[in-house]
Amino acid sequence: MDNKLLKTDERIDQLYSQDVQIIQNPHCFAFSLDAVLLADFVRPNKKKRARIVDLCAGNGAIGLFLHNKLGGHFTEVELQSQIADMAERTIKLNHLEDRYSVLNMDIKDIYDQIPKDSADIVLCNPPYFPDNEHSQKNPNRALAIARHEIKTNLTTVVDRMSGLLKMNGRGYLVHRPDRLAEILTELTSHRLAPKRIRFIYPKPDREANIVLIEVIKDGGTGGIRVVPPLIVNRPDGNYGTEVHRLLYGEQK
Amino acid sequence: MDNKLLKTDERIDQLYSQDVQIIQNPHCFAFSLDAVLLADFVRPNKKKRARIVDLCAGNGAIGLFLHNKLGGHFTEVELQSQIADMAERTIKLNHLEDRYSVLNMDIKDIYDQIPKDSADIVLCNPPYFPDNEHSQKNPNRALAIARHEIKTNLTTVVDRMSGLLKMNGRGYLVHRPDRLAEILTELTSHRLAPKRIRFIYPKPDREANIVLIEVIKDGGTGGIRVVPPLIVNRPDGNYGTEVHRLLYGEQK
Repeated sequence: MDNKLLKTDERIDQLYSQDVQIIQNPHCFAFSLDAVLLADFVRPNKKKRARIVDLCAGNGAIGLFLHNKLGGHFTEVELQSQIADMAERTIKLNHLEDRYSVLNMDIKDIYDQIPKDSADIVLCNPPYFPDNEHSQKNPNRALAIARHEIKTNLTTVVDRMSGLLKMNGRGYLVHRPDRLAEILTELTSHRLAPKRIRFIYPKPDREANIVLIEVIKDGGTGGIRVVPPLIVNRPDGNYGTEVHRLLYGEQK
Repeated sequence: MDNKLLKTDERIDQLYSQDVQIIQNPHCFAFSLDAVLLADFVRPNKKKRARIVDLCAGNGAIGLFLHNKLGGHFTEVELQSQIADMAERTIKLNHLEDRYSVLNMDIKDIYDQIPKDSADIVLCNPPYFPDNEHSQKNPNRALAIARHEIKTNLTTVVDRMSGLLKMNGRGYLVHRPDRLAEILTELTSHRLAPKRIRFIYPKPDREANIVLIEVIKDGGTGGIRVVPPLIVNRPDGNYGTEVHRLLYGEQK
């Protein structure tokens, strides 16, 4: 293991199902199941010239989980320099420098670096929680920025996803179901037609806590497919078959 | 059984779980599982002076399924005279004339009969399918009107639901998930805040084909609860436990 790539408090986690290693730091950014689920939700596209952009990329986990399923070049856009640096080193750790690059910048300025209407696929796992004075935020600033809409917000995320995508390009968003109406309205009003939605429930008798959404830029309205639900845990608290496979791969 | 209430081609179906009998006519209107699911989704409210309106009421099935769970007075609004007449006779069949009345009219004219901002609860199982020249419609005109947006449409349904409801009144809608984005956008833009959503899947590995939505007039945005999914059939094709209970009641 290439430990000279690691800085203080960092560790390497492996996603066995995709055979990638990700540098994590619990004090600033660590991918969660949401990232694994969004990567699984993305349709395969082996086109060698595909241009893929990951907005709010964090340590680059989602893009890296897709190294086999998607062809082409990934651009990871991350605002926080310490986390963008983890993404850079994670790419090196996996020897994927030829296919991945990192932009340490605010997504609102993205057109300075990536032309409008140029991306085939845009991925995004944005901050979930509105930034209002009543919201409880993590006292750790880096974690608060990753989770709360302090530095960006849903409207900006959706606007940049739409602006970057080519006509008929596909966007993938993971978010919280409690904002579902707002999310679908923002997407639709930004030329992004929701086409496929999946709800993730922690247990069979619990409310959904994650929603995955696929959109097509300038796609027709209607025809939304709400695909089968995913129940993360069995009633006994252990991972169900599907999540176990996503994390650890097919059982031999 | 009170067979003098029946006309040609009509039959009486019983919803055992609620102990009500419904006059059905497969050639013009028969309630389906959707109606049973919507009634089950409604929150109990025993207020004796509650004013409840069912828009696009058909033979009145949904309202009648709620005779125990809701207090107050039900107004069933149905456009097609033959079906409104079935609703009238169904109310008599169940000896519920003191709590139910039928209005045979177009919902667009509803304010001629029911004041704006006067309803505590509005129910609606509207026509699901857009009326465009490409849509396959049932050659039977009565069934086509019940299923396709020939005489009304989503915007009108949502507008009248909102207009009838008091502030903080609750609306309940059953619809198709393939129009989810349009539905949530219409609701939100008509002062109806979606608060609780349930997706119904025919089998564990199939896409959702029904969505149930609870709204609150002038409710705050956000805080949508996507409650546990309902899977109608077990993999073997028989009804699952929950649907069996909804149709036949608790097993003794």
